[in-house]
Amino acid sequence: MLIVQKFGGTSVGTLERIDNVAQRVIATVKKGHKVVVVVSAMSGETNKLLEYAGHFSKAPRKEDVDALLSSGERVTSALLSIALNELGYPAVSMSGRQAGIKTNASHTKARIESIDPSMMHAAIDAGKIVVVAGFQGVNEHTGDVTTLGRGGSDLSAVAVAGALQADLCEIYTDVDGVYTTDPRIERKAKKIEKISYDEMLEFASLGAKVLQNRSVELAKKLSVNLVTRSSFNENEGTLITKEENIMEKPLVSGIALAKDQARVSLSGVVDRPGIASDIFKALAKADINIDMIVQTIGHDGRTNLDFTLDKNELHAAKTILEPFVAKKEVASLSADDQISKVSVIGVGMKSHSGVASKAFETMAKENINIMMISTSEIKISMIIAQKYSELAVQALHDAYELDK
Amino acid sequence: MLIVQKFGGTSVGTLERIDNVAQRVIATVKKGHKVVVVVSAMSGETNKLLEYAGHFSKAPRKEDVDALLSSGERVTSALLSIALNELGYPAVSMSGRQAGIKTNASHTKARIESIDPSMMHAAIDAGKIVVVAGFQGVNEHTGDVTTLGRGGSDLSAVAVAGALQADLCEIYTDVDGVYTTDPRIERKAKKIEKISYDEMLEFASLGAKVLQNRSVELAKKLSVNLVTRSSFNENEGTLITKEENIMEKPLVSGIALAKDQARVSLSGVVDRPGIASDIFKALAKADINIDMIVQTIGHDGRTNLDFTLDKNELHAAKTILEPFVAKKEVASLSADDQISKVSVIGVGMKSHSGVASKAFETMAKENINIMMISTSEIKISMIIAQKYSELAVQALHDAYELDK
Repeated sequence: MLIVQKFGGTSVGTLERIDNVAQRVIATVKKGHKVVVVVSAMSGETNKLLEYAGHFSKAPRKEDVDALLSSGERVTSALLSIALNELGYPAVSMSGRQAGIKTNASHTKARIESIDPSMMHAAIDAGKIVVVAGFQGVNEHTGDVTTLGRGGSDLSAVAVAGALQADLCEIYTDVDGVYTTDPRIERKAKKIEKISYDEMLEFASLGAKVLQNRSVELAKKLSVNLVTRSSFNENEGTLITKEENIMEKPLVSGIALAKDQARVSLSGVVDRPGIASDIFKALAKADINIDMIVQTIGHDGRTNLDFTLDKNELHAAKTILEPFVAKKEVASLSADDQISKVSVIGVGMKSHSGVASKAFETMAKENINIMMISTSEIKISMIIAQKYSELAVQALHDAYELDK
Repeated sequence: MLIVQKFGGTSVGTLERIDNVAQRVIATVKKGHKVVVVVSAMSGETNKLLEYAGHFSKAPRKEDVDALLSSGERVTSALLSIALNELGYPAVSMSGRQAGIKTNASHTKARIESIDPSMMHAAIDAGKIVVVAGFQGVNEHTGDVTTLGRGGSDLSAVAVAGALQADLCEIYTDVDGVYTTDPRIERKAKKIEKISYDEMLEFASLGAKVLQNRSVELAKKLSVNLVTRSSFNENEGTLITKEENIMEKPLVSGIALAKDQARVSLSGVVDRPGIASDIFKALAKADINIDMIVQTIGHDGRTNLDFTLDKNELHAAKTILEPFVAKKEVASLSADDQISKVSVIGVGMKSHSGVASKAFETMAKENINIMMISTSEIKISMIIAQKYSELAVQALHDAYELDK
């Protein structure tokens, strides 16, 4: 098999940990596999470089930031290649450019546009382990180095796996995989063996920190079999794959919790065509992402508009909405940042009824008031008071028998 | 004018020093000049990275070492560009690749083969300060990053100045320029205002540490006006230029001292054709550089062969020569590592006689025995006992009135 293995910052955080990574890569090679490794900067390095930049400027030129930050991953890839060669396993280190990763011009958060894997193929064919510096590519127009933003090394790994048509893309982190829910909240949480891309996307966007949404989306697009596992033990991780590759689909895969939510309530919104659109356009212009929206008819023809958003965008949202109150298009504005979103996720929901009603029953049994509800084919999300977060997660985990 | 300014590791050793460098670059721009800056890694960085590599391997793969080390200069160039932009002076950072520096395939000590200055020209024409990461280029065959070896950033600066046909290439270090001799030995030593390439080459190869020989050679080849000066004060430095640019040529420019010398004496070398060639070929094969050679006829047709070399190559040389003694082609081998080479340098010598005889007279007056002599058009070198080193330098400095 051809396997792409990605090791994050904590997995390569010290020289000794890089030794361990080398051993793990070699163990995979010894099993007869070809390996391409993608590495992050040693943990702390990127922040150190950002601090350096911060000494000179609050808003440094993005091309310079990318030139600066990309050095961190290059150091790790060179060191790992040196380690592998010393241990008798021929390896070559490659920058994002050498790995053929071309991006658009959005420096510091570039999008991968294409990959030319010819240099990687040549090295693999020559029997070498390829060690690619993650998180980086080159601007396809200027040739300047770009970086891919948060979770960028995962993205590099998935893109490389796709371009090489690798059999597997293993993302090594400090956790064992994806759990039915956060084990710190519910000790009976179990590691999930296999999960579909769509479910994983819900997990990722609903608060699970294992993988970034963009990496899962790209894996789905490129049909890359993604495994998330720990670099600190030998446990099998979680395979994220096409739904049809999962034989036994559970009704519910897990429970996700997002605490960093806030709710904005606009009451007495004037009844004129386009008012809701005006409000949400103003928020979108400021790059504020709105999650759930509920509109209810109030008295005297006016409506109430409730929506949720990330807590750290609440202040900005209020500033944008206050003019609507001043213009009397909205009677009053209130906000609540003591809320949580708890979600039930499972592809099995598609073909089974009764999943949602069990969630509502469970909340009722625990006397937890559901403020807002949003559903999709494969998830049910509920907004509740934050103080009930853990209770809700535990009750739902029990109700769907996820510990079985 | 178009000026290339190169700042070494100590000049960019801290964030505050990079602030100072930015101010110095801006001061030059304010005078109406266009500036291209070449920077080294922050002092200590390269050694840190080499230590990292040493953790994994005693003889790491050179391509990996270059990928590793080149990150240091990229960090500095990005930081300086960020600083300049923040201060309102548009700047761009460039890697060696972006600056168009192409080298041969000798990783870790690559030779610059060509420079394509088009990206630098475009940036300069757009009114920008270009900040180039020194010490690096790309292998013209593979596109892999290469590094240029010791003094590599100076070399980058000279090559860039040559390719851009810059009016001046300023090398900033922690010393004020080139002195008539080492000021720690002779307090009356004076800074030299102008010096020819050839004299500077003698100074560099005879122990002065200001500039590497290869940088001066390249400056001569490309007719780059080179200035070496301090980044810690505003003093004018030393201009290294074509001989014809120096109007008033002093008889003697300075006195150089090299202490790390050793002498090997082979006595009773057998009289057969090709024996000297055999001896020196064996040494050359082991990359041992021989400096002065003196052959004297002994009794019974045998000859004596004396030569000098770097002290740290003495052990290797002895190992190579012992078989000649064992074969009885050489009667005996002795060595002396308590010697120094003191040299009188000056282009004026070419057209003036009596310079050499004054040197010998001065040594005689001080009762210093001259063991070996070697002369060129512009220098006289003498091997003396090491204990007389300082005395010889001071006496010669006085004799040629270099403090005037």
